[in-house]
Amino acid sequence: MSADLARFSINQMTVKQLSPPELAETCVRLGVPGVGLWREPVRSYGVEATAKLVRDAGLTVTTLCRGGFFTAIAPEARAAALADNRRAIEEAATLGTEVLVLVSGGLPPGSKDLRAARERIADALAELAPYADGHGVRLAIEPLHPMYASDRCVVSTLAQALDLAERFPAHQVGVAVDTYHIWWDDRAPAQIARAGAAGRIHTFQLADWTTPLPEGVLNGRGQLGDGAIDLREWKGYVEAAGYFGPIEVELFNEGLWARDGREVLAETVERFRTHVTG
Amino acid sequence: MSADLARFSINQMTVKQLSPPELAETCVRLGVPGVGLWREPVRSYGVEATAKLVRDAGLTVTTLCRGGFFTAIAPEARAAALADNRRAIEEAATLGTEVLVLVSGGLPPGSKDLRAARERIADALAELAPYADGHGVRLAIEPLHPMYASDRCVVSTLAQALDLAERFPAHQVGVAVDTYHIWWDDRAPAQIARAGAAGRIHTFQLADWTTPLPEGVLNGRGQLGDGAIDLREWKGYVEAAGYFGPIEVELFNEGLWARDGREVLAETVERFRTHVTG
Repeated sequence: MSADLARFSINQMTVKQLSPPELAETCVRLGVPGVGLWREPVRSYGVEATAKLVRDAGLTVTTLCRGGFFTAIAPEARAAALADNRRAIEEAATLGTEVLVLVSGGLPPGSKDLRAARERIADALAELAPYADGHGVRLAIEPLHPMYASDRCVVSTLAQALDLAERFPAHQVGVAVDTYHIWWDDRAPAQIARAGAAGRIHTFQLADWTTPLPEGVLNGRGQLGDGAIDLREWKGYVEAAGYFGPIEVELFNEGLWARDGREVLAETVERFRTHVTG
Repeated sequence: MSADLARFSINQMTVKQLSPPELAETCVRLGVPGVGLWREPVRSYGVEATAKLVRDAGLTVTTLCRGGFFTAIAPEARAAALADNRRAIEEAATLGTEVLVLVSGGLPPGSKDLRAARERIADALAELAPYADGHGVRLAIEPLHPMYASDRCVVSTLAQALDLAERFPAHQVGVAVDTYHIWWDDRAPAQIARAGAAGRIHTFQLADWTTPLPEGVLNGRGQLGDGAIDLREWKGYVEAAGYFGPIEVELFNEGLWARDGREVLAETVERFRTHVTG
């Protein structure tokens, strides 16, 4: 593995067309040391089987994505979400990753109350953070871009994520810093410093911002270097805040998914060298 | 005109399928006292002719949309933008409105520097604000939703808009408060208070937030009541900040544009009564 890839991690969703064995094989061949995994493909392949696969390949699992979806009001729905998040914590422990990424969930049907939805997230964290701690897993609250505030994630800024995280010990609850979601926010660099000072940067993820956005705005994350974000600048912010952990590339992009996954992973490695570490 | 419509204004874009005479006639028939106008249809009909039309109909022109697009780097492009904004100021004066709404512009081609782009806006304002003042026109910086930060408007929050506006006297430069763009922002209520205390709320606009967003995310603004925004709550924030001026409904929505414009305007009046003043 070359030094400039030492911190590189490929999120499984970026090349979801690859099976877990294909992903592991391609990582080894390209010198990629880390992978971020998603629950759905992991469960399809088997949690134990995936754990063995990546362990045998010598790969580090940098994160498991994702838990969360804590904003329901109905007691049964809340109980189901908590049970599912306990399973996610157990899966993270089995896979050998220390970080479970959480996406909070959007507004429940008929509700217009963002503040109350955010408060329900805190209630869920209070139940889950000690459970995760007991499994050696840290929770990373991921603020998503404000364009997802109604239907996916009521936590829209790093400041909001930290306001939630800081109610808990740093080794239990921190934040996910993802350039795609925060690049527009002039307060984000100061919030990265706030997060870093407390040891709450639990993962750092990259995607570039490209337009026009596709319908539904889910699958238009740009390949590194294709968009408006100065990725090197954001790497500088997290490093100035003391974070020197894995840098995970997480792209949801129909164009990339339509191509050969091995080729996309090789391209992503090159883009990382050119636009991030080079 | 009924009391609950006293502050209502319809932005011309909401019913752009109506010609200016059809718009004026429909406003009079429905008891709508105010209109927000756009430069392109106004210039097509003629600035003087539009001014006479709305004056004869007894309508108040609450805003002219829009100037701006100040972020170019090339000197010729910057000079052209300033010249065009002087014309917009003159048109606003001719139309008898006190408020010109400004959309700042996105990143210039190849640039990734949001901070520098925002600073160029301040340079342009320094040239235009006194000119507008001389014409009895106030400039309203409109923060657009962060999903437009790269290609349309590098000013993404009320806080950023106020940071720019406060470099100038309040009667020269203020902000546009539009629910569609700021509803997700937990800091926005405090920023509305900041704006109101200084007399810098120069217009208040409504649109609802609906999903899924359409491709390009431009023309998916929701009819009042169809989405996630508690419009009455935001009206309360601007009123608590001392703003009791016009409330303009500005919807860009392909579905509404495909319908009969008179019917859409009548529906919008009813929605305003039900979800805003009722």
